[in-house]
Amino acid sequence: MFTPLVVVELASDTKEEAIAWILSRIRDQQQNGGVHVGVDPLNSKISFDCEKENPNMFLVGATRQRLLSGAEEVGLFKECNDGSMRGFTCANKHNFKDFEGDGDSFLNMAECQYIIKHELDTLRAKDETHVPGHTQVKLYPGKSIIRRLQSKGILIQIFPLHGQEELKRLSFSWYKKVKLSFQPLDNIRHYYGEGQALYFGFLEYFTFALVPMALIGVPYYLFDWEDYDKYVIFAVFNLVWCTVILELWKRFSASLAYRWGTLSRKKAFEEPRPGFHGTLGFNPVTGRKEPLYPNAKRQLRVYLVSLPFVLLCLYLSLYIMMIYFQMEGWVLSFHDEEPTFWTGILMFIPSIIYAVVIEIMNLIYRYAAEFLTEWENHRLESSYQNHLVLKVLVFNFFNCFASLFYIAFVMQDMVLLRQSLATLLITSQILNQFMEAFLPYWLQRRRNKKMIRKVQKRRTVEEKELPLAEQVRLEADMSTYLGTFDDYLELFLLFGYVSLFSCTYPLAAVLVVLNNVTEVYSDAFKMCRVFKRPFSDPAANIGVWQLAFEAMSVIAIVTNCALIGMSPQVKAYFTESETQLILWTVAIEHMLLAFKFILTFLIPDVPKHIQIKLARLEFESLEALKKKVRKTL
Amino acid sequence: MFTPLVVVELASDTKEEAIAWILSRIRDQQQNGGVHVGVDPLNSKISFDCEKENPNMFLVGATRQRLLSGAEEVGLFKECNDGSMRGFTCANKHNFKDFEGDGDSFLNMAECQYIIKHELDTLRAKDETHVPGHTQVKLYPGKSIIRRLQSKGILIQIFPLHGQEELKRLSFSWYKKVKLSFQPLDNIRHYYGEGQALYFGFLEYFTFALVPMALIGVPYYLFDWEDYDKYVIFAVFNLVWCTVILELWKRFSASLAYRWGTLSRKKAFEEPRPGFHGTLGFNPVTGRKEPLYPNAKRQLRVYLVSLPFVLLCLYLSLYIMMIYFQMEGWVLSFHDEEPTFWTGILMFIPSIIYAVVIEIMNLIYRYAAEFLTEWENHRLESSYQNHLVLKVLVFNFFNCFASLFYIAFVMQDMVLLRQSLATLLITSQILNQFMEAFLPYWLQRRRNKKMIRKVQKRRTVEEKELPLAEQVRLEADMSTYLGTFDDYLELFLLFGYVSLFSCTYPLAAVLVVLNNVTEVYSDAFKMCRVFKRPFSDPAANIGVWQLAFEAMSVIAIVTNCALIGMSPQVKAYFTESETQLILWTVAIEHMLLAFKFILTFLIPDVPKHIQIKLARLEFESLEALKKKVRKTL
Repeated sequence: MFTPLVVVELASDTKEEAIAWILSRIRDQQQNGGVHVGVDPLNSKISFDCEKENPNMFLVGATRQRLLSGAEEVGLFKECNDGSMRGFTCANKHNFKDFEGDGDSFLNMAECQYIIKHELDTLRAKDETHVPGHTQVKLYPGKSIIRRLQSKGILIQIFPLHGQEELKRLSFSWYKKVKLSFQPLDNIRHYYGEGQALYFGFLEYFTFALVPMALIGVPYYLFDWEDYDKYVIFAVFNLVWCTVILELWKRFSASLAYRWGTLSRKKAFEEPRPGFHGTLGFNPVTGRKEPLYPNAKRQLRVYLVSLPFVLLCLYLSLYIMMIYFQMEGWVLSFHDEEPTFWTGILMFIPSIIYAVVIEIMNLIYRYAAEFLTEWENHRLESSYQNHLVLKVLVFNFFNCFASLFYIAFVMQDMVLLRQSLATLLITSQILNQFMEAFLPYWLQRRRNKKMIRKVQKRRTVEEKELPLAEQVRLEADMSTYLGTFDDYLELFLLFGYVSLFSCTYPLAAVLVVLNNVTEVYSDAFKMCRVFKRPFSDPAANIGVWQLAFEAMSVIAIVTNCALIGMSPQVKAYFTESETQLILWTVAIEHMLLAFKFILTFLIPDVPKHIQIKLARLEFESLEALKKKVRKTL
Repeated sequence: MFTPLVVVELASDTKEEAIAWILSRIRDQQQNGGVHVGVDPLNSKISFDCEKENPNMFLVGATRQRLLSGAEEVGLFKECNDGSMRGFTCANKHNFKDFEGDGDSFLNMAECQYIIKHELDTLRAKDETHVPGHTQVKLYPGKSIIRRLQSKGILIQIFPLHGQEELKRLSFSWYKKVKLSFQPLDNIRHYYGEGQALYFGFLEYFTFALVPMALIGVPYYLFDWEDYDKYVIFAVFNLVWCTVILELWKRFSASLAYRWGTLSRKKAFEEPRPGFHGTLGFNPVTGRKEPLYPNAKRQLRVYLVSLPFVLLCLYLSLYIMMIYFQMEGWVLSFHDEEPTFWTGILMFIPSIIYAVVIEIMNLIYRYAAEFLTEWENHRLESSYQNHLVLKVLVFNFFNCFASLFYIAFVMQDMVLLRQSLATLLITSQILNQFMEAFLPYWLQRRRNKKMIRKVQKRRTVEEKELPLAEQVRLEADMSTYLGTFDDYLELFLLFGYVSLFSCTYPLAAVLVVLNNVTEVYSDAFKMCRVFKRPFSDPAANIGVWQLAFEAMSVIAIVTNCALIGMSPQVKAYFTESETQLILWTVAIEHMLLAFKFILTFLIPDVPKHIQIKLARLEFESLEALKKKVRKTL
């Protein structure tokens, strides 16, 4: 008997013998090459009238003992009685803080689900050449069965179940009460895992980091200081601010990751991603059979196809931008000649067209980028993600900021810059909130209602909780959460608006703070109510996004220095020689860049007290080794 | 019975009981808190007439078994039968490639000496409150005895013995035969350890990397291309070159470190350096008693005293430079008024005075920097070294290059720049070779001769080899090698001359190549004949110097871009607007900097085939863990 944790859905046309084989392999002892976890078909007590229900849904779970040994295998870090974080081992289980009795409540649900996912992923073919009943689904010794089923469409989905009780508690403390307090990050991590919790931690951190900027921005706006003379102070503040907060975030994130046990956790060896293909050979690291694809070929694809494609898209984006500015010019001259109400409205047309075209381009580009990155045939999911993030990032950066750069540095029109910044910021926020939160919520609500109506038809009114089978089917129909990619991308662009040009529009920080506050609520709501529960992701930091934000902060130094150099206030000091002004600006910019890099070196990425704890673990393992050596002599 | 490996020299006024206590502690079993290595007094068979000989010289060595267990304790990496590098363990000793029979020749002499040094360092006080017979030399439980003896002057020196046979073979293959081949890096590493071998590897790599530049420079010089119009191509070449070679060096150095087993070797926990002081407390990492010194206090000393002092020195250096240029101006005007032979000679006076003053300033500053860094009271030797390197580096950079920067960018006088560069380069090379190689060699030769004469007085002429006792005394009198600091500093400055301004003086690379070739020979000679053998240092890379060279290459991009922007060739394109020229130069410079950083990310620091081997080790240890977990269930 086991608590159901994970749902596995197979295609409805899967052969009986394939199902029997899969179940027996999953249930088999580990000595026999199975993973020894429990799996049961989902029995709907209530058979619905409609025929669309898929009969091949299975619930997976495991015994407490199996989960504990799995925790050791995945290298889970847990808090010990002395307050340090150590890799869990069954032998030392009683040294761990929350291990009581048999350790029933030692692992939380998200951890158990992660362990089961990991175990299922490591279920490997023995001497089967294909899946029984499906001769086209080839196998070879060592191939991960789940991944093959996934890539051949037999496994439709695998997802962890929501914990209704815990979810209710979490959503109450997270977004249901309006309060002035931090998010329950530890609870979020407890329920969704470290990757999600780090995103919400970053979102919150970023919001708080913006507050001083917003506070400075308000008087600038209220007392009409934004006559471009006073923005020098604001730009200087921007400069320092965006360097410092990123450095401090690294430390904060290291603290979180240490507390959550992912900072020093060793990564398991990564399996090839499901879509990866190549000629069968032996992996030089594991010695296992797996498809191999020459790295040189992949590099050729990246540098000879993807890179030129991205550059072409950037050029196209620039070209469209230039057309937009031309249209703006025409409309303006048209309006100036004969200003009527209709020409006034006509003024808005180019902006609207441009905004729509940008959105469409973003969408098409996103598909193209996904296609290209898939075609590059990366062996690892992480490498795939990095290449995709890079492609999308660069293009989005260009699309969002190219026009602002053009206005600021080619047209040098600060009034227009402010207008454009405000327009871009406000429209993108409204669009985002609508697309991200309201729309999925509304769709989900419709789906839920339909389901509940269906169920209620056949039940007495007293039962308030849905029975397990219905709950599972309900969750199986929920949208799949596609990861934090889009959420981080949005934050990245907001960070760009604030750090690059906000000195010309001091209210930007205020708007972003407001946006972030609603974003916390809408994202929280989405996670709890709209999406299937995602598997937890034992992340130790925000990964490639840290780099992206740092790159943005370097660009921010350059733009802010240039804006300062172009300000009338500064120009007044260099009335006789423009050359002198530029040289000074460049010199100061170089000094600031150097200072930023020195600062990055000087501020340790991990706080001292955590460094000490990590050093102590290292020291203990060295000492233990020495003792072992002496004993064996 | 053991082979003598290391010499320990105690002060001649050490009390008898202290000596007896030290020897017994060293010889004691490890269970009793000793280190269980052999130590014998050095018996001079021949008593010299002069009374100056110190009687308290001891030879330290250990049994083969003890050395092997020590190798496991220090975490030595050795090659296995399957070609991978693994941490040596006594239990698996037969899996290692060169382990034959009892493993007599498994560890080389340098490794044995390193192990003995490490074991002696970890000899800790038990419940002694002071060294017997020396009540002023306080001890507390856990204090390293050797370090305390060293800091109190009882231990005068501890050094490893030269291996005469191996040294002869090494020096023959290294510098005695004139040939066109690489240095025997593996043999150097075998004899001197990884730190030294990496220095010589870097020196050689750097020399070869300069050859293309030298080859391009020669025609520039011969065909008088250096009319400052053509230097643009040369500057562009410089730019690319200095980025690429540093990246490739990282990979080459990782290959070397992997082959030598230091790449993935874990660093042992570092003991506080001998000069470190503070109030006695418990180290939060080890739990051992040791002096503690608040980090905040150290930071205050660094930022409030050392940093202002360095800045003051830099200012002083600039000030003196300005005086030099004024003197130059005076002398020039004096010479122009009435040019005679004597005023021609007078022309050289300011340069000579300036050169002398710079040398004196460097010397004084070096002492001040050492004093300040000592006073900052760093706990670790590595941290002390980093702070010292940084201080000395910045000042030397300023002293050497400030005048060149001034000539290039303030005076914009390319002819003078070329002259100064040539003068600085040639004089510093001649001075260096003299101070570094010839002088110590001459001093050592005198010392050797005296010793041999002394010995020969009492011996028959047949015996050619010195007896052990005399050999030990001879080596004890040799100069102590102070580490690679000055050698790297010299290379760093040469790299600066070549990368920063060499486009104006294309022969610079040729001169540096010539210098480096002689440097290889003189350094090799110094190591083999002039200095005591140093303890080997298991370095995995060139450490802080990699950073220093990379910083220099960033500065080189900036200066080369500026030089290109100032070239008449480029100026010809922007005749109408200087502003345009500067903006373009700055834009291109920024792009190059960005490109450099992207390149740094793209080129992996460790070559692929070594990454795979490291991943395999990691994977195997994870798999072993999993197997262990399954067995214990």
